[in-house]
Amino acid sequence: MKKIIVIGGGAAGAKAASKAKRLEPKNHVELYTKGDVIAYSLCGLPYYIEGSVKDINKLIVRTPEEFIENGIQVFLNSELQEIIPDKNCVLINNNHIFYDELILATGASVKIPDIENINANNVFTLHSIQNGIDIKNAMQKAKSVLIIGAGYIAVELIEAFIANNLKVSVVEVNTRIFSDFDEDFSVAIQKIISDKCARNLDFYLGAKATKFTTDEKYNFKSAILDDESEIFADFCILATGTKPNVEIARKAGIQTGVTGAIYVDNKMRTSISNIYACGDCAQKYYIITRQPTYIGLGTIANKEGRVAAINATSKDYFENFDGVLNSTITKFFEYTISKTGLSYQNALEVSKNVNLEPIQATVSKKDKASYMPGASEIKIKLTADKRSGELLGAQALGTRDNVAQRINTITSALKSRLTVEQLLHLDLPYAPPFSSSIDPILTACYKLKEQLSK
Amino acid sequence: MKKIIVIGGGAAGAKAASKAKRLEPKNHVELYTKGDVIAYSLCGLPYYIEGSVKDINKLIVRTPEEFIENGIQVFLNSELQEIIPDKNCVLINNNHIFYDELILATGASVKIPDIENINANNVFTLHSIQNGIDIKNAMQKAKSVLIIGAGYIAVELIEAFIANNLKVSVVEVNTRIFSDFDEDFSVAIQKIISDKCARNLDFYLGAKATKFTTDEKYNFKSAILDDESEIFADFCILATGTKPNVEIARKAGIQTGVTGAIYVDNKMRTSISNIYACGDCAQKYYIITRQPTYIGLGTIANKEGRVAAINATSKDYFENFDGVLNSTITKFFEYTISKTGLSYQNALEVSKNVNLEPIQATVSKKDKASYMPGASEIKIKLTADKRSGELLGAQALGTRDNVAQRINTITSALKSRLTVEQLLHLDLPYAPPFSSSIDPILTACYKLKEQLSK
Repeated sequence: MKKIIVIGGGAAGAKAASKAKRLEPKNHVELYTKGDVIAYSLCGLPYYIEGSVKDINKLIVRTPEEFIENGIQVFLNSELQEIIPDKNCVLINNNHIFYDELILATGASVKIPDIENINANNVFTLHSIQNGIDIKNAMQKAKSVLIIGAGYIAVELIEAFIANNLKVSVVEVNTRIFSDFDEDFSVAIQKIISDKCARNLDFYLGAKATKFTTDEKYNFKSAILDDESEIFADFCILATGTKPNVEIARKAGIQTGVTGAIYVDNKMRTSISNIYACGDCAQKYYIITRQPTYIGLGTIANKEGRVAAINATSKDYFENFDGVLNSTITKFFEYTISKTGLSYQNALEVSKNVNLEPIQATVSKKDKASYMPGASEIKIKLTADKRSGELLGAQALGTRDNVAQRINTITSALKSRLTVEQLLHLDLPYAPPFSSSIDPILTACYKLKEQLSK
Repeated sequence: MKKIIVIGGGAAGAKAASKAKRLEPKNHVELYTKGDVIAYSLCGLPYYIEGSVKDINKLIVRTPEEFIENGIQVFLNSELQEIIPDKNCVLINNNHIFYDELILATGASVKIPDIENINANNVFTLHSIQNGIDIKNAMQKAKSVLIIGAGYIAVELIEAFIANNLKVSVVEVNTRIFSDFDEDFSVAIQKIISDKCARNLDFYLGAKATKFTTDEKYNFKSAILDDESEIFADFCILATGTKPNVEIARKAGIQTGVTGAIYVDNKMRTSISNIYACGDCAQKYYIITRQPTYIGLGTIANKEGRVAAINATSKDYFENFDGVLNSTITKFFEYTISKTGLSYQNALEVSKNVNLEPIQATVSKKDKASYMPGASEIKIKLTADKRSGELLGAQALGTRDNVAQRINTITSALKSRLTVEQLLHLDLPYAPPFSSSIDPILTACYKLKEQLSK
């Protein structure tokens, strides 16, 4: 028997608590969270705002009651104040609580940009169930919205707002959207979004909001950009990325890594042996570069929560988390945008420190047999290392699930460090409704091979 | 410069001729085919019959004129009579034609079962463009059809005929359909098909047609089964599988393998050094079992045609074909059925000769976040080897492209011989419209892992 304390009720914490209890029913598992809901899907919020998910309670995977039924003690509205590793103890709501093993799943917070009047009313972030409710309420009373940032959350919210007939403005400090993709993809993605939204969407790229103006009730009225132009909107969303919540851990002497997130080994152990960290507060290991990285994603949080619980419970259940590929996917109306591993530009940057010589090949091809109804264009780029021949990453843009089909295939290729040569004739299942007889990813491999043999 | 002769105008032959010419424009490339069309998609025929492909000419990827424009000589209605390796010469339409390199892409033929009156009118196979036209004509005049066989072609034709309001009977000698899947999948697939077609479809499983009755014009009238029951239909389809066309090659002393298909090495060379074989006439190497196998599929034919042409053209362009995973996929209305590698039953059979201890895990789970509209059930089974921990295969049944997404992922895992442990936390891109936060294939891996650690 062990007493395992989990801090945080998001994907990582909820999974860790459940797994720790299920593995060893005799464990005392206590989950503490500062909020009043646990085990909810943040990733589902844009679809609630958009309207395809009608009931926000559907985003709650498991209620506190269900946890309690499984024998897990749940403490809501309980914020971590201090960790005292020497005493195997945490301070929560001014109570000292002792543990055998501590699992930190303190999550991340939205990076708040330095803008005057950032705290005005009607300026929202999207990082909790309550945020989702607030944004949906604001949207229903509004005709226009300003989004600061142009990443995944921003694009998912553009769809939600356009579907609800709002006029949308987007201000992004980079000169292009989706800057984790290569520029040609950024341009293609932006074109799709712009074409779809027509006059209801304006992008302000390479622009920075310096000040929000407000009305007499301190409600958001407009944003002033660095070129002094002014964008009016009924409310504003900050979709400016997240940063790991590490302050309390750091104060307790728990080591953080070069990314600023909590350092963990492949068993999710921190620098203190009976303290684990998982999810958005924990640093990741990037399989491709063999370097630390940071990305906050629900699916990774889930997996890490599982591994933290397994290793915290017992040496017998031993499991490693090998690292991430920085895989992402999102939909925009009927389009799908996805990537895994390094873009060509990523690879060029990495090649300054790591022994790599990046090459790339792009293919635009029908996503199924060209004679099939509904065949549509898929654009795929593969990157590889000319020296080793190993694949480094893939980006894809197309319609529906046909993109996931290709990117998922590349994830397992990257995991096993397949070379272009080894992937060249991969026996992907073929029928006319699903692919061309030579799949677009193999066509891209053929192109890479030509470069490899030069 | 070389003179390269290609025999056969299907996927393998057409690809081989095109590639050989493109690689070395000075090559003299001649393509001989017994039919009057080349480079057509047999796989598309069911969708032409069904009606979603309106114009059968769309199934012709490239016309003879396009080949000629590219400098490839094309000889239609030219049947191979003899190969004379000693003289580097083939006999075609009674002419002796000399070659430097010969590429055999003689394809396969439908296995004709031993049934009395098998040659009756209105008894069709589906193995050429003309067959497709004939079947569509027959369908348009008919109210009912009998299909002998219950594999991929049969199921694709069931959809076509049901969509065109025919009454369909299916006679299959095995006691279940899709016998390359495990029995639980066969049962689930059959249930989906039966539910969808309701009273318009009857399966006769474990049954054998022994005789066709005919009318006075020798038109098909009914089939008599081995239990003496009689099934009436307006026409009949033989979907009884294919066998490689190897007779002329064998007579010329070209070695065939244990599967009966032409033996080739990983450069698609036959036992005679300047004679290559590719596509449905050639034996395959099965990556999983490291044993010979035979499967006739358009996508493999394409890849092999490419490799044969590369190696026939020059030692400089050297390329290997590593083998197949016996991956297949088909759609049935909104459902998708797919597999790659070994089923559990396949693995048990193989384990008699190969050092394997098969284990299996099946997961039924929503194919996207359960709260997303359109989330539907996907059933996935993974098989693995308890001794090495290596994955052996996957089967999946669900709706739309979500099945391809998962099976494709497993193909690259199989190609690189990933273990369950290595696949366990694969960083598949996640967003609610595409997957659950732990993908069903990873849930299946978790289940396999439990068995591995026992």
